[in-house]
Amino acid sequence: MTVKELPESRCDVLIVGAGPAGMMLATWMARCGINARIVDKRSTKIFNGQADGLQSRSLEIFDSFGFADRALKEANHMLEMCMWNPGEDGTLRRSDRVPDAIVGLSRFTQIVLHQGRIERFFLDNIKKHSKDSLRIERAVLPESLSISEDLCDDHSPETYPLKVQLRHLTEEEATPAQSNGETIQDGLFRSNLAEDDTDDLIAHSRANAGSTEVVKAKYMVGCDGAHSWTRRQLGFELEGEPTDFIWGVLDIIPITDFPDIRERCAVHSASSGSMMVIPRENKLVRLYIQLTEIKPDASGRADRSQITPDTIIKAAQKIIAPYQLTYKYCDWWTAYQIGQRVGTNFDYKNRVFLAGDAVHTHSPKAGQGMNVSMQDAYNLGWKLALVVKGVAQPSILSTYQSERRRIAQDLINFDHKFSRLFSGRPAKDILDESGVSMTEFKDAFVKGNMFASGLSVDYGSSMLVAKGGDAAEQGDGTDVSSSKTQIAGNQELAKNIKLGMRFPSYKVLNQSDARPWHFQEWFKSDGRFRLVVFAGNVLSTAQKDRLDAFCGKLTASAFLAPHIHKDIDVLTCHSAKRIETELLRDFPEVLHPFDDKTGWDYNSVFVDDLSYHEGHGEAYKNYGVDQERGCVVITRPDQYVGFIGELDGEGVKGVETYFQGVFVS
Amino acid sequence: MTVKELPESRCDVLIVGAGPAGMMLATWMARCGINARIVDKRSTKIFNGQADGLQSRSLEIFDSFGFADRALKEANHMLEMCMWNPGEDGTLRRSDRVPDAIVGLSRFTQIVLHQGRIERFFLDNIKKHSKDSLRIERAVLPESLSISEDLCDDHSPETYPLKVQLRHLTEEEATPAQSNGETIQDGLFRSNLAEDDTDDLIAHSRANAGSTEVVKAKYMVGCDGAHSWTRRQLGFELEGEPTDFIWGVLDIIPITDFPDIRERCAVHSASSGSMMVIPRENKLVRLYIQLTEIKPDASGRADRSQITPDTIIKAAQKIIAPYQLTYKYCDWWTAYQIGQRVGTNFDYKNRVFLAGDAVHTHSPKAGQGMNVSMQDAYNLGWKLALVVKGVAQPSILSTYQSERRRIAQDLINFDHKFSRLFSGRPAKDILDESGVSMTEFKDAFVKGNMFASGLSVDYGSSMLVAKGGDAAEQGDGTDVSSSKTQIAGNQELAKNIKLGMRFPSYKVLNQSDARPWHFQEWFKSDGRFRLVVFAGNVLSTAQKDRLDAFCGKLTASAFLAPHIHKDIDVLTCHSAKRIETELLRDFPEVLHPFDDKTGWDYNSVFVDDLSYHEGHGEAYKNYGVDQERGCVVITRPDQYVGFIGELDGEGVKGVETYFQGVFVS
Repeated sequence: MTVKELPESRCDVLIVGAGPAGMMLATWMARCGINARIVDKRSTKIFNGQADGLQSRSLEIFDSFGFADRALKEANHMLEMCMWNPGEDGTLRRSDRVPDAIVGLSRFTQIVLHQGRIERFFLDNIKKHSKDSLRIERAVLPESLSISEDLCDDHSPETYPLKVQLRHLTEEEATPAQSNGETIQDGLFRSNLAEDDTDDLIAHSRANAGSTEVVKAKYMVGCDGAHSWTRRQLGFELEGEPTDFIWGVLDIIPITDFPDIRERCAVHSASSGSMMVIPRENKLVRLYIQLTEIKPDASGRADRSQITPDTIIKAAQKIIAPYQLTYKYCDWWTAYQIGQRVGTNFDYKNRVFLAGDAVHTHSPKAGQGMNVSMQDAYNLGWKLALVVKGVAQPSILSTYQSERRRIAQDLINFDHKFSRLFSGRPAKDILDESGVSMTEFKDAFVKGNMFASGLSVDYGSSMLVAKGGDAAEQGDGTDVSSSKTQIAGNQELAKNIKLGMRFPSYKVLNQSDARPWHFQEWFKSDGRFRLVVFAGNVLSTAQKDRLDAFCGKLTASAFLAPHIHKDIDVLTCHSAKRIETELLRDFPEVLHPFDDKTGWDYNSVFVDDLSYHEGHGEAYKNYGVDQERGCVVITRPDQYVGFIGELDGEGVKGVETYFQGVFVS
Repeated sequence: MTVKELPESRCDVLIVGAGPAGMMLATWMARCGINARIVDKRSTKIFNGQADGLQSRSLEIFDSFGFADRALKEANHMLEMCMWNPGEDGTLRRSDRVPDAIVGLSRFTQIVLHQGRIERFFLDNIKKHSKDSLRIERAVLPESLSISEDLCDDHSPETYPLKVQLRHLTEEEATPAQSNGETIQDGLFRSNLAEDDTDDLIAHSRANAGSTEVVKAKYMVGCDGAHSWTRRQLGFELEGEPTDFIWGVLDIIPITDFPDIRERCAVHSASSGSMMVIPRENKLVRLYIQLTEIKPDASGRADRSQITPDTIIKAAQKIIAPYQLTYKYCDWWTAYQIGQRVGTNFDYKNRVFLAGDAVHTHSPKAGQGMNVSMQDAYNLGWKLALVVKGVAQPSILSTYQSERRRIAQDLINFDHKFSRLFSGRPAKDILDESGVSMTEFKDAFVKGNMFASGLSVDYGSSMLVAKGGDAAEQGDGTDVSSSKTQIAGNQELAKNIKLGMRFPSYKVLNQSDARPWHFQEWFKSDGRFRLVVFAGNVLSTAQKDRLDAFCGKLTASAFLAPHIHKDIDVLTCHSAKRIETELLRDFPEVLHPFDDKTGWDYNSVFVDDLSYHEGHGEAYKNYGVDQERGCVVITRPDQYVGFIGELDGEGVKGVETYFQGVFVS
């Protein structure tokens, strides 16, 4: 073979893997107009099966990109969870019934929809925002990565420290073989019971002299799953323990007399193992079924050939007896054997990042996998975008590992406990020490609900979260304290808008047209921070003077002025009666900017007042903000709360100091 | 030219005109799988301007087809209406502020979105349900219609009494010239200030020997606008009065200090005429502006050449003074001069029907036009579909004229009064008899709100509405009393589910999974009637026995049995505690049918109980149904209430009698 020059190109961000994490990252890139590429070794997207639970927080994120409505319309909504286990007579019975999501926590409850549809929503959104310029490049995978170590710390715009050789597969090479000749789609080839095929794909393509190209990139993100090729190149490990528990998964339309088949159920049988029931869209139900009769071999891995839909349904029938359970239609099936493991490192020198399954693996039964993976990418995407655009300091990239590795550790601990309780045999009585107490299981579930909603995430102190305390201790150990500034927001001014947590949502009215909105609907994922001005009682002259003075100082800040509206969206919510404060023009212009083509902005000033048709949001009360004096809050582009200050000169100074620690001067 | 055989084909329903009425009809045809065609003389759909207000009832209808969510997402929502007129000092001031929609009437309030988007939703829905087999055929128009009079009463499947010759225009022939060379789109060519161009189009195409074809049809519907070619063929007239009032319409992004520019406003100036403000999507605002300085000429028609965006905005500026009003972006503009007129006949021998502007014209300011037109077609579509399919008796077609001509008359009366009050000069004081009392205007608006929502529609007695009384008197005079049956539903059993009105909506829970739904969400427009079984307190043995007996008799009815589930969907709502009545299998099978491929139906039994996250719908209380004993309700495929009976043998007999008057035996 003659040596010839490979085609070479440049991009700012190269994403490897187009699962939910990769697509979330690509969505940010599209939304922020970043020159990015995303490649995936498979030739098609997912069409059925795979992960399917969407937690409340994921729906809030989807909504911030504008496609939660599509998911809500198509999905099955989960409202209630039931626990089934043997009664005193040993017969299976419902012991508990609890709400599936904590009441009042989010405007969204949990839903179930298969991964293929979710990927479709991402694809449509990426297409819309990139104007079709960012497309998933399928049947393409990296085969070599070289990093110019000396360039990693140089974040100037023309520096590309990464060089990646990409290999283009043929359609045939990229299409995975199903594990058997059946027509039912199975997911074993993606399961952790299967070996990774990346190296085989590369070797096969090399033997056929397939085409390659070289990409020089500023940043790269490996969203390439549990076998992550990217992680291997960096030499990073996943740490943790495997388990002996093997589970089968069926997506079927069940024919059954089990009364709770349309509820999420945890079923503990006396001695045949456990099962989880997750009702889905289109009459489907997903069953996670413990395969107690299949054991790992000497290598610690289960024999795949023993596992078929038939063996799985038979195991389910034993667990759910005396109820009947059969099916005529199976949409998809798989099996897995998973421990809880978390990556030692989430980034290499803030140039190569890992997200999703590439840095944490755990059982799918808690419905966390896809959610946490997407949220990894959601955390990283805007940071990368702002650094690439030269708006934010590269140091903010360190918060990715600090924030998300901590979450992964929490997840692994949660899953470890939950899985152990779920896989264990129910205790016969309190003396049965090797059995699992069903009371303990219920408590773990109820307590875990907050975690499982995705809304307990509380990022530690850093240059992005001004909340004081030890940054290393509050994260995963990475030092992300702000080098220039040491400020802390005043939590007391907005007791329920927690520094480090996502901004909660209550209904407010648009001042200009009385339309009620969940305030969160205006916290769009557009790459901008938000300055939320709780203007208080603007009908009081004293308060109006405070507001005017605050806005005057804000616009007078030479540091802030160029960023206001461009990188910092300004949203106002006041607490006076709407119809008594009707004149929007009385508000300082920075709160509702004027454009000489489109006039005044009528979508930036809101009020905490009674709506005509949807009640009163009681926003000030719920946020814990003083109705008279208000306050000012900074949220990050991902809606997490960064700073809280007074509506005065000190507050402006706090806002300025916060952004001096974030933006490039 | 040599005489040659024209291509000839057959279809069940031919629709002429693809505006909102035609598209609504096509949507029904697609949904019910009818062999239909729809032609339109224009070469493209609407892209901007035109009608834009959607009333609550129209949104309920959209939702029943599955696309209200798209409209709600894109539209501007109107919550409040303000009235502006001269104060005692003669200066313009806001005199009143009222909710735009009556609180509690519907789950939807009113929205504004331009007609082009609404047509897009229809097109997508038609495509989806017809699997792409029903498409709008553009640049095609009828040029002759012949009716085989002797075949009109023969409704056997192979009878095609209508023969229509269709002419296919070239793209160029079908594209209307804009009224001037400007780049802003105007609607004058569709306005009633322009002459109809249908005959010109036909003549031009004939001169060019354009292509033609012959279609033999069972039914035809003219949705071809105020100049309706179809109406002219039938020799029917519009009756009513023209007016001298000329109005201009601007769709602009306004630049203004008028405080209520994002509210619906009625502005009466002291002596410069009136204006209506309708805020729209994408920062646009529609202004309806009275052009007091432009008068009709001797022929009674205004000179179009005098009307430009510039003359219109100048008129607006005078009306809204002392506030400033300018714009840099105009999306669309037009002008009109309209009286209130209604067609003498809505059908010809139940074979050719007229809908929408073809049978009623009025001013657009009450936001009724597109809504009433779509609702004409919504009323007609399912009746045609059921007759074509051989399910329903052809006599039900007479209810179209009876029901919709009555509505059109009501509309014309409403619009006449509203327009007069709106176009008049405000009275200076109570002695100013030639002026319009602003109190009277406000009262008319508030009273008219119920009418304007589309929810006051109350269809008279007929074979489709078993409510007793004189059918001719309750309709437009047409005799539509049921020939075979004389039953009347018992209004007392469901006091707030009014016979002849649309079934109202409250929240209920799905028995199987606790998910809250607006009950109306399950009243899909799929061409089926609905039997709503208010099962009462099923935990009482006596009531459970009544329910079982009712269901037993229902399934034992030789007449009803073949229609149940196929032509009559069965929905149940009981009033016992959900968690105490958990066993769906205890309900009679007819209420949740079993399918050997997909198991039990889990979406047909609901309960009036407290939800976890969305409160208590109090459905029984709101519907006025006895919580203990329940009742049974029949709704038509368009959700209007046809019958109410006891949950007993008499009730089954009533249901049977009702359907014997509707279905072919």
